[in-house]
Amino acid sequence: MKCRLLCVRCAKTYPFQLMGKCECGGVLLVDYDLERAVRTMSKSELKERPFTMWRYRELLPVHKEERIVSLGEGGTPLIRMHRLEEQLSLKQVWVKREEQNPTGSFKARGMSVAVSLLHERGAGHAAVPSNGNAASALAAYAARAGMKATVALPRDCPAPIIDECRYYGAAIELIDGLIHQAGERIELGVRENGWYHVGTMKEPGRVEGKKTMGYEVAEQLGWKLPDVIVYPTGGGSGVIGMWKAFRELQALGWVNDPMPRFVCVQEEGCVPVVEGFAASRDTAAIGVAADKRRLTPRAVFRPTPNERVTSQPTGMRVPAPPDGGLIVSIVLESQGSAMAVSATEIAEAQRRLAGMGVSASPEGAATLAGLLKLAAQGCVTDRDRVVLFNTAHAQKYGVTAM
Amino acid sequence: MKCRLLCVRCAKTYPFQLMGKCECGGVLLVDYDLERAVRTMSKSELKERPFTMWRYRELLPVHKEERIVSLGEGGTPLIRMHRLEEQLSLKQVWVKREEQNPTGSFKARGMSVAVSLLHERGAGHAAVPSNGNAASALAAYAARAGMKATVALPRDCPAPIIDECRYYGAAIELIDGLIHQAGERIELGVRENGWYHVGTMKEPGRVEGKKTMGYEVAEQLGWKLPDVIVYPTGGGSGVIGMWKAFRELQALGWVNDPMPRFVCVQEEGCVPVVEGFAASRDTAAIGVAADKRRLTPRAVFRPTPNERVTSQPTGMRVPAPPDGGLIVSIVLESQGSAMAVSATEIAEAQRRLAGMGVSASPEGAATLAGLLKLAAQGCVTDRDRVVLFNTAHAQKYGVTAM
Repeated sequence: MKCRLLCVRCAKTYPFQLMGKCECGGVLLVDYDLERAVRTMSKSELKERPFTMWRYRELLPVHKEERIVSLGEGGTPLIRMHRLEEQLSLKQVWVKREEQNPTGSFKARGMSVAVSLLHERGAGHAAVPSNGNAASALAAYAARAGMKATVALPRDCPAPIIDECRYYGAAIELIDGLIHQAGERIELGVRENGWYHVGTMKEPGRVEGKKTMGYEVAEQLGWKLPDVIVYPTGGGSGVIGMWKAFRELQALGWVNDPMPRFVCVQEEGCVPVVEGFAASRDTAAIGVAADKRRLTPRAVFRPTPNERVTSQPTGMRVPAPPDGGLIVSIVLESQGSAMAVSATEIAEAQRRLAGMGVSASPEGAATLAGLLKLAAQGCVTDRDRVVLFNTAHAQKYGVTAM
Repeated sequence: MKCRLLCVRCAKTYPFQLMGKCECGGVLLVDYDLERAVRTMSKSELKERPFTMWRYRELLPVHKEERIVSLGEGGTPLIRMHRLEEQLSLKQVWVKREEQNPTGSFKARGMSVAVSLLHERGAGHAAVPSNGNAASALAAYAARAGMKATVALPRDCPAPIIDECRYYGAAIELIDGLIHQAGERIELGVRENGWYHVGTMKEPGRVEGKKTMGYEVAEQLGWKLPDVIVYPTGGGSGVIGMWKAFRELQALGWVNDPMPRFVCVQEEGCVPVVEGFAASRDTAAIGVAADKRRLTPRAVFRPTPNERVTSQPTGMRVPAPPDGGLIVSIVLESQGSAMAVSATEIAEAQRRLAGMGVSASPEGAATLAGLLKLAAQGCVTDRDRVVLFNTAHAQKYGVTAM
């Protein structure tokens, strides 16, 4: 838990604090004394601990254990999809069932850390702009901590998620606009009311929480890394978090495999990461620092203008991710890919997963839609072990709506 | 996995097969060679296994491991409720978050075993009468196994659950009546179409799956048993399963604590277990066989007539549990209790749990409503460790409906 902040771009360091960006504009990630951490967190010690994400507490930035705000997040199943493997002639396909977290989505992980950091500091009011799942997660964790929460959501957010935020007692602001416009509302509250902002890249906790998905996949595969990670990408901090997790495990010598290829999937009608990847893959020189904890992004990245956004209201609809350049850099460095899938392909993939017993959100279904394209293009083969991330329950979107 | 069936009433044994009742009418439970099971399933071996309910596979009745139908069930969090402890002056209160199972309820456990048993035998079509959660669980597990499923539900079943059954591809029969009348529809399909009936006490798998809740609570508490289990009771096989689990752990010497007091909670307007308990507690002589694997129920138990049923459509609305006498016997033997709570008390308890970050179904909230009464009556004290079972997600019922 001894840690500092390190700029992924310029390598400047800061004492640990609740900030998200370096003065150079680069993303600040938490930098641990890894050797010290594993003095108490050995592989065998992990077996003695409950299978929640807090089993990795030495590599999470909360210092006061009694201030951890936990609802039982992490420790989600990784299930093998034998029928898909047969159908697609692939070696191994797994689904990481992130919908089995508290509040039914992977957002529980990041919010558990972010709210714990606020709880350590005695904060009274947390706030977040969100497409839905981060909002209901904040609402639940703030309730658990006895803290107030305000969430700002695009007005077309699925009704069950708005209900869920209300259920946990959050104040809700419905915005006529997209998630970055919801962000403007939260910024106002930060300035005027002293709210604590737990939006993407506003503080270091959420990426740290999400990185535990990477630790878990590695542990669940017997401290091996998969070859391919297919991830539905909006703000992209899941990708940043897992990339960081795998780097840390490599640095520790806990895994000997190369970095998995990250494949970002977005829905047609809002594909800034896909466009950034296409614009960068032939030209960008990605500088990877020798210690491999840093990336010097030279990727081309531009937000999607509002008027071009036509995709459905899901977690993938993020026209201006706070560090799109870093996401594209990770995709490039890992020799991965980024691809667009249509709403029709997502719906079809969701039906296919339902027919195999999996409750897949549109975002989770998009990863299967992406895998089908990867397989058709020969970009994954029968030598690859692939992990799809089902980030939320279908039910959260209203099943009939799908 | 070597096992047979043992009648809990008359002690007659049968080779393992898919039957639920003895010729004497007693419940058949699976009887294992416990000493043999723990040759490979030691406490230290368990630490090497994934934290799903199949970690206890030597004490589950599926013989062909490759036929296990799993979606990542079990291994749910047990979270401490410090604020409730302070408010109620209790020593320890825990919530077992069964809503974090696949399909968002504890029913996943029983259906994973039941469908695995059918999958071992090449069954093509499974069917169940249900108040909702068992139906959507069967739908998902049948889909995973490539099996057909038919579910019969009272017409007033919450819409999101009906949607969920449809999502997984089950055929749905909506019945103008209660769960036992839905059962008549399924019996017809069993006779005319050869469906396999996985209803409560129709086969031995579901109780075995549910018993893993008991194993997990014991393991999560460091191989200690809680003092009190508060459980929302409909068909009651969760109570029967956990009672069996604790007996098995005691027989193995893995726990040294006495049986927890089982408290069954039902909603006013359908309280056959509460009435059976009231009618039996002063008079019934409960025969416990010397080997403690059996109970000779002499409890008074009568189903609630349809015309007296006024409770909400939840999993607790079961006027005629297939072995109510056994449930009452377990409550009596464990020196537990059974209590009715009102719809208003349930709604109030649900709000209270929401305010602590927990997504509680009406059934789960009923356990808190029950605990409040127990505490007020002095039936739980500051010496007791209490576990509440939150059996399903609030969302499955439509949050706004609450």
